[in-house]
Amino acid sequence: MPQISTVVHDTSEAMSIKYNTMVYELRRRGQDVIVMSLGEAYFDIPLLPMDDLPYPEVNHYSHSRGVRELRVKLAEYFSSEYGVSIDVDREILVTAGSKAAIHMTLMSILDPGDEVICFEPAWVSYEQQIRLCYGVPVGVPYDKSLYDCEAYVTPRTRAIIINNPNNPRGEVFDEAALRYLLDVARRRNLWILSDEAYSDFLVDQEFVSFGRVDPAKTHAVVFNSISKNYGVSGWRLGYVIGHASLIDQVLKVNQHLITCPATILSWYVARHFDEILDITKPQIRNVVCKRKQLAAYMDTIGLSYLPGAATFYFFVSIAPSRLTSDEFCTRLLLEDHVSVVPGIGYGASCDRFVRVSVGTATMEDNQYGLRKIKELIDKTS
Amino acid sequence: MPQISTVVHDTSEAMSIKYNTMVYELRRRGQDVIVMSLGEAYFDIPLLPMDDLPYPEVNHYSHSRGVRELRVKLAEYFSSEYGVSIDVDREILVTAGSKAAIHMTLMSILDPGDEVICFEPAWVSYEQQIRLCYGVPVGVPYDKSLYDCEAYVTPRTRAIIINNPNNPRGEVFDEAALRYLLDVARRRNLWILSDEAYSDFLVDQEFVSFGRVDPAKTHAVVFNSISKNYGVSGWRLGYVIGHASLIDQVLKVNQHLITCPATILSWYVARHFDEILDITKPQIRNVVCKRKQLAAYMDTIGLSYLPGAATFYFFVSIAPSRLTSDEFCTRLLLEDHVSVVPGIGYGASCDRFVRVSVGTATMEDNQYGLRKIKELIDKTS
Repeated sequence: MPQISTVVHDTSEAMSIKYNTMVYELRRRGQDVIVMSLGEAYFDIPLLPMDDLPYPEVNHYSHSRGVRELRVKLAEYFSSEYGVSIDVDREILVTAGSKAAIHMTLMSILDPGDEVICFEPAWVSYEQQIRLCYGVPVGVPYDKSLYDCEAYVTPRTRAIIINNPNNPRGEVFDEAALRYLLDVARRRNLWILSDEAYSDFLVDQEFVSFGRVDPAKTHAVVFNSISKNYGVSGWRLGYVIGHASLIDQVLKVNQHLITCPATILSWYVARHFDEILDITKPQIRNVVCKRKQLAAYMDTIGLSYLPGAATFYFFVSIAPSRLTSDEFCTRLLLEDHVSVVPGIGYGASCDRFVRVSVGTATMEDNQYGLRKIKELIDKTS
Repeated sequence: MPQISTVVHDTSEAMSIKYNTMVYELRRRGQDVIVMSLGEAYFDIPLLPMDDLPYPEVNHYSHSRGVRELRVKLAEYFSSEYGVSIDVDREILVTAGSKAAIHMTLMSILDPGDEVICFEPAWVSYEQQIRLCYGVPVGVPYDKSLYDCEAYVTPRTRAIIINNPNNPRGEVFDEAALRYLLDVARRRNLWILSDEAYSDFLVDQEFVSFGRVDPAKTHAVVFNSISKNYGVSGWRLGYVIGHASLIDQVLKVNQHLITCPATILSWYVARHFDEILDITKPQIRNVVCKRKQLAAYMDTIGLSYLPGAATFYFFVSIAPSRLTSDEFCTRLLLEDHVSVVPGIGYGASCDRFVRVSVGTATMEDNQYGLRKIKELIDKTS
């Protein structure tokens, strides 16, 4: 067999996808599974009319920055909701998911050997995406403060990547934290890549986009996801907002890798933008409230988790267990038919945790799953 | 401003997309343009029912190899049409366009400095995709024979990439050519990446997939596109077929870059597979016949082009003109409002050509555009 590249050979599977694939395969064999491993929340969304979209345009390639009508809608939303102003023709690019947008941005800023700082627990693909660009991920352990991060900056550091609100922790950075990061970025000449895919998954808390603290976008690069905030994760629509000179670079990469996201779905979201939000916003609030109730439930059964109140994720401690987080999750899935994601997928400092997603199962099933986690910790301590 | 990566800074725009973007922008200013630059054919396709798809599954992530029902359909098609047998669970991965599939495969096989041989005129993104993987594209000039290619193999060569049928030439490789390539691949331990996106755009000619000459897939990696053969280029659905051990590597990259293509569109194509083919196949035949008529027309007005009979492209010689192909195309667009793509986008040996796509304009407009090309050659000779 001819060669496999070293970098891909050494790439590990996304831990979350590895477990979700195991779930698909168990289910195909007829096994019921309580799924608390998915990176999505299930909303009840009707299929709105498709026949008022511009045919045959919806079948063809769109502009490589994305369907302009959708960019206009997204820019209006960023302006009214987050106070961030965007030039729709220069400062935004829509592509096949925010995951692709982040990867193409990393490609656009990293030379081989350059470093990117991530805060652990860090979303599963940052580290691997950085490595796939021949960059070096530098993890800040979960028990360090954000304000410690400058100690990790070296002459090779090019960017700091944050996930705000954070998957899997559920934490939201306040404006002071963002201003501190901008200050570091200015002094050390870094990009701040701010992945804001869960920007609407908050209640009783204000969300501050990094775009608001750096309106000129000289350091801010903001990612967001239509897939997440609109409950259509499988539609693969995400976007990047940044300085025109950076977006021009990402545009070239997008032309050679993807061309554009699905035109028909882009048009659908553009045309039904407000209607979809009216349908999903109350459901987003519900899932964040459900999270709050499950936090209280964990307190009663003696499970601990990292602080945070946004998203539909928890980063739950399994500390007393002797098992690695991967062993723990495999056993939980195969014995108890409950799927969660090993903490080790979120950074080297995180093997004493598992990620629990409460976005898809019922309250009762989530409680059952949490009890099973507690029991497995107790059994293996 | 923080750093832009060297590799992306040095990446050029896809020439075809550069011109199509100029077209979008001229049209927005109210200018009529005869478009002979698009990488797609326009078919008349009704929107089939969406309400029989499995809700809410269509809104969520699918398996990272793609919706299984779609893989089954594609495998059946490859078996019945091309005599290629595929293990749907191990040997095929569907992602957001064949462009992404090719890039992720290049990532999966290339170490920095490794070489890939391309035949010029080579599709616009091969060279840039190889460079974006820190590989080295090695172009075989357009006037060399396929059978000369072994002279370009070095100890760093990892793959030969072919586009069969060829965009922009319209050429189809016969079985002898494919067997020769397989022989080179075996002796020199190379992958043969066979991009077969236009596999159905032939009449009076048999198409031989590279998968048929290498059924064990020890060297063959085949790419194909639902977008092209089904007239929905903007839906971004393409796939890669190869040995399970290679697809397992591409799977990891897909998990970190894209996750999966649009689930709802995957289901739509899976459910309506045969119906869509019934609608598009006659239209594919028509566009290839239109190409034949336009070939005869070029002969009458004295335009020459590289031999080939498939697809809806021509690689037309502008040889006597003093202009570079980029200058030629810009002038043709701005003065005559006819868009075609500069040959230089297809390889260093190709600056005496332009790519003409006859898939979208009417017969009359295509003839007008070809006359304008002839006139501009005459004016600038």
